[in-house]
Amino acid sequence: MQLPKTVFKPPFSITRASHLVSVVTDLPAARAFYVDMLGLIVSDEDRNTLYLRGIEEACHHSLVLKAGPKPVCERIGLRVLTEEDLDLAQRHFAAAGLPTQWVDAPFQGRTLHTADAVGTPLELCAQMTTRPRRIMDFDTHHGVCPQRLDHFQIFTPRVQDACEFYMAMGFRLSEYIVREDADELRAVFLQRKGNPHDIVFNAQTALRLHHVAYTAPEAYHLMYIADLCGKNGYGDKVERGPGRHFGPGHARFVYLRDPDGHRIEFFNNHYQTIDMEDEPVRWEASRLNRAGAWGPAPSESWLNEATAFAAG
Amino acid sequence: MQLPKTVFKPPFSITRASHLVSVVTDLPAARAFYVDMLGLIVSDEDRNTLYLRGIEEACHHSLVLKAGPKPVCERIGLRVLTEEDLDLAQRHFAAAGLPTQWVDAPFQGRTLHTADAVGTPLELCAQMTTRPRRIMDFDTHHGVCPQRLDHFQIFTPRVQDACEFYMAMGFRLSEYIVREDADELRAVFLQRKGNPHDIVFNAQTALRLHHVAYTAPEAYHLMYIADLCGKNGYGDKVERGPGRHFGPGHARFVYLRDPDGHRIEFFNNHYQTIDMEDEPVRWEASRLNRAGAWGPAPSESWLNEATAFAAG
Amino acid sequence: MQLPKTVFKPPFSITRASHLVSVVTDLPAARAFYVDMLGLIVSDEDRNTLYLRGIEEACHHSLVLKAGPKPVCERIGLRVLTEEDLDLAQRHFAAAGLPTQWVDAPFQGRTLHTADAVGTPLELCAQMTTRPRRIMDFDTHHGVCPQRLDHFQIFTPRVQDACEFYMAMGFRLSEYIVREDADELRAVFLQRKGNPHDIVFNAQTALRLHHVAYTAPEAYHLMYIADLCGKNGYGDKVERGPGRHFGPGHARFVYLRDPDGHRIEFFNNHYQTIDMEDEPVRWEASRLNRAGAWGPAPSESWLNEATAFAAG
Amino acid sequence: MQLPKTVFKPPFSITRASHLVSVVTDLPAARAFYVDMLGLIVSDEDRNTLYLRGIEEACHHSLVLKAGPKPVCERIGLRVLTEEDLDLAQRHFAAAGLPTQWVDAPFQGRTLHTADAVGTPLELCAQMTTRPRRIMDFDTHHGVCPQRLDHFQIFTPRVQDACEFYMAMGFRLSEYIVREDADELRAVFLQRKGNPHDIVFNAQTALRLHHVAYTAPEAYHLMYIADLCGKNGYGDKVERGPGRHFGPGHARFVYLRDPDGHRIEFFNNHYQTIDMEDEPVRWEASRLNRAGAWGPAPSESWLNEATAFAAG
Repeated sequence: MQLPKTVFKPPFSITRASHLVSVVTDLPAARAFYVDMLGLIVSDEDRNTLYLRGIEEACHHSLVLKAGPKPVCERIGLRVLTEEDLDLAQRHFAAAGLPTQWVDAPFQGRTLHTADAVGTPLELCAQMTTRPRRIMDFDTHHGVCPQRLDHFQIFTPRVQDACEFYMAMGFRLSEYIVREDADELRAVFLQRKGNPHDIVFNAQTALRLHHVAYTAPEAYHLMYIADLCGKNGYGDKVERGPGRHFGPGHARFVYLRDPDGHRIEFFNNHYQTIDMEDEPVRWEASRLNRAGAWGPAPSESWLNEATAFAAG
Repeated sequence: MQLPKTVFKPPFSITRASHLVSVVTDLPAARAFYVDMLGLIVSDEDRNTLYLRGIEEACHHSLVLKAGPKPVCERIGLRVLTEEDLDLAQRHFAAAGLPTQWVDAPFQGRTLHTADAVGTPLELCAQMTTRPRRIMDFDTHHGVCPQRLDHFQIFTPRVQDACEFYMAMGFRLSEYIVREDADELRAVFLQRKGNPHDIVFNAQTALRLHHVAYTAPEAYHLMYIADLCGKNGYGDKVERGPGRHFGPGHARFVYLRDPDGHRIEFFNNHYQTIDMEDEPVRWEASRLNRAGAWGPAPSESWLNEATAFAAG
Repeated sequence: MQLPKTVFKPPFSITRASHLVSVVTDLPAARAFYVDMLGLIVSDEDRNTLYLRGIEEACHHSLVLKAGPKPVCERIGLRVLTEEDLDLAQRHFAAAGLPTQWVDAPFQGRTLHTADAVGTPLELCAQMTTRPRRIMDFDTHHGVCPQRLDHFQIFTPRVQDACEFYMAMGFRLSEYIVREDADELRAVFLQRKGNPHDIVFNAQTALRLHHVAYTAPEAYHLMYIADLCGKNGYGDKVERGPGRHFGPGHARFVYLRDPDGHRIEFFNNHYQTIDMEDEPVRWEASRLNRAGAWGPAPSESWLNEATAFAAG
Repeated sequence: MQLPKTVFKPPFSITRASHLVSVVTDLPAARAFYVDMLGLIVSDEDRNTLYLRGIEEACHHSLVLKAGPKPVCERIGLRVLTEEDLDLAQRHFAAAGLPTQWVDAPFQGRTLHTADAVGTPLELCAQMTTRPRRIMDFDTHHGVCPQRLDHFQIFTPRVQDACEFYMAMGFRLSEYIVREDADELRAVFLQRKGNPHDIVFNAQTALRLHHVAYTAPEAYHLMYIADLCGKNGYGDKVERGPGRHFGPGHARFVYLRDPDGHRIEFFNNHYQTIDMEDEPVRWEASRLNRAGAWGPAPSESWLNEATAFAAG
């Protein structure tokens, strides 16, 4: 096993995890969950689509929910810095033999549909319509006070390939887990925006989306949203936590499942990692969550269930 | 099953759950746990005994830990209002055929050793030595910032007897759990100080102490103490929570086991219950923790393990 | 100056500060402030009256707001334990030459109108209609999540008289402030329910109500309600704090003025004081808020403005 | 007044506000303040110097305190991404006619001393010695749990010049304040790391350092550090807050003065701003802190006092 080299000056600039496009089978139920309970803000909606954002986000949407027959994830959205970066990205993906297609996406600038080296369907853009940040609209804050989308976690059987692909585009490896016996990458935590992750790849048999994560202000909100789930009949949707990762990222977290089974994490207390000398933190799978960990072991559902991606 | 009548004007005044006297097998280990980590304050100590109190307590001790060969609980301490109440209490217990003995207890006024109707060894006094409240000594606050002892929970096969015995002494029944099929009291939550409990009796095969509970300031502290346990090698001592009781008291809680296995709860968000018209809240065992509850079911250890009382 | 003796076994049992009846000049504006923003719960309302309670209160109301031409306080409400205590109270007040009158008060049991020795108009009752505690209705919690009424503060030129009158009825003096030069009581903090205060008297030229206080869960909520006031156009109603009393009670507090100028405090981190040996804490006015205090000195408005009581 | 254009692809990459080098007159007193009370971590120290970092920082130091005769600020530290960026920076500053000098700075890689266009003494480097992040060392967290250095605020009579100089190096203008009558920039909030500021320039008669700011986890910690200051005899060092900026950045804040008068801010609840379309937010000086603001107006000391820079 070899860790790829950090590319400090990548050919184009991806800036951050941006948004998620998912399909839900019951849009009103999803609205009740994400908007009425969790507290995401509706930027726009029509009969078949909800465009949601966190309370500090100026971008039009970080979560797009579309009504459909099966609960799948359509695409992971990444931002590039400029329109020029978008063109460079298109050439980069095409040169790698990956599909690229320019599409119209509502409330977004020019949008590129493509896929990464392990097949994750991606959507890249440089710009979105903006809306006022609601961070000071204290009268509208409720639920978990979701602040902003932070990262995605993806299941893939090809963690090493994913790691190489993203690091070649300038992603930094903040932390990783190795299977010592197999000398193999078990999970990689990759970032562009200067905190522990934008996108995480975790070893599993098939490509799927494990979760999308938003930041929440305080420990209080992680406890409160669990209580609120309980009160609202979603008690069984509190899948894990509130707890603490005694492993990569070491966030304070809570994981919820939405009415369709899509998983969303709320967390706080990440750290900043920007500097040249920041080396990836190595964790050994066999010792993970041993020293220091508290709380019940993650359930089978948390470990193994995930959202399929829509067939291309 | 019949609920006893509330006695608004009892023959003497027990005021509150006061203190606990327990035996630990390794006093330095207990000191590291309770003082260095949890943040209880040492009022006094000698080679064989630790006298501890919470940061808002003016009473000399709410937890007495004695070194001994076996981890048992010696006594539950209750306070009466005046010295006269103490004499009336002695007569009341003696008249009920229960053992009573006046003893010298360090840092306490006249102290009565007795037992309740189900055999719980009790220690009653009207006064203790006082020490300054440390509530404003912000520089000494650490750990979970334990504020004050709040209540005890006892396992007994004779819940109905316990309920009758304590209510005859003016305890109010704040909440209770019934086994519907058996028309039987499963648990009773009894209080004198105007919040949900001073002493709780829970149906089990043998008399034992389930836990002592202290209040902690904020949700943050319940999460933080779990993290601190993890860091300090006590990760496996975080037995349950942080979570929320969707049943009697409905506190936000975390349960820890000390190095000897004694259980301590930290919680917040109880309520005040003083008024004449406050009726006991009825819960049905079969429905408990169903509607609204979140989080993993309590473990076997939490349900069944408890501390034996010292043989009289 | 002499501190009155504590009466441990008073002739009848007043249990706690219960409720406040105030007049507001614009009931819809008051509703917007207390209900929509602060988060008090409406138990009942009609065209001219709002009956409000905190989220943990089972009693029908702790704040009654009546529409009227002038913003005054009609009465301070106190609870007694039983109906018998109410009759004993009536005889006690009458024997002291104070006015007593039985009245019908909506949603209350038999209600006694009277006044204390310094003229504060009082309303005593043993019972109220009950409503479900909303402590678990997490979906309805908002604003400062006001939990329960805790205490009143009264301006009076006759602090010593007030102290003697209430202590004769079994109130405990938890803390007090003396003017050293004059050997005079400057403020007395009196309690029945086992925490620092139910009623406070503060030396001032005329009898008036300084504030009513409710508990709020966490430091977060005290900061949040100030932010919410700002957002809702009530920024200038945040009169003092969030801050900390480095004096009696040493609560973490925020003081707001309602649209009519009535003052309401939200606070947390009081302490329990029940025991026989708890001695009143003495503070010297000249040193108060010196050692240790932080934050701006209280404004003239906070020090001197208060609500007049309705003319009998 | 003209806002400079955003430079998305600057000639070299400054990444973030990095560290501050200040002189204190009493190093043990500074250690008691910053380490024992605030909770900063000592990475290294000798008789004349303290190297401090926040609990999540892997870089060796974010605050260097040197013993000296006068309380001045020596330099503001900025990070560049790579060693190559450092060389490019040197050429850039030299080409602008600014002094540049390569120096040895302990625990740092190659270090460039220079100054910006308005005279602020700067220190640039690409690398530092690293130390373990202490974010999971919960047993060492105390005080305000300072997480990481976030930004500096500088007083200068030449705000427009500062704005142009930094924006030419790729700094984004997140927010700014204009004096409407004078059509003049009153303050500019400039950032490289994707949140509201790395460096702020505020109009004042002479070049000085107003404050350095660290993030703190929760509202609780901002209240707690004020309490702790009070307890430790630094009550008068709590200069402003805890409060909320109803203006640029809109952070929840508290400002402290150290024993030498240097000012440090702790805050939380900033927002992310990375995207191409994020436009600078305009504030008008005359309306600032009007709509929505709560709390006392900033004191004269907060408005006008600041730390002089050491003479070159």
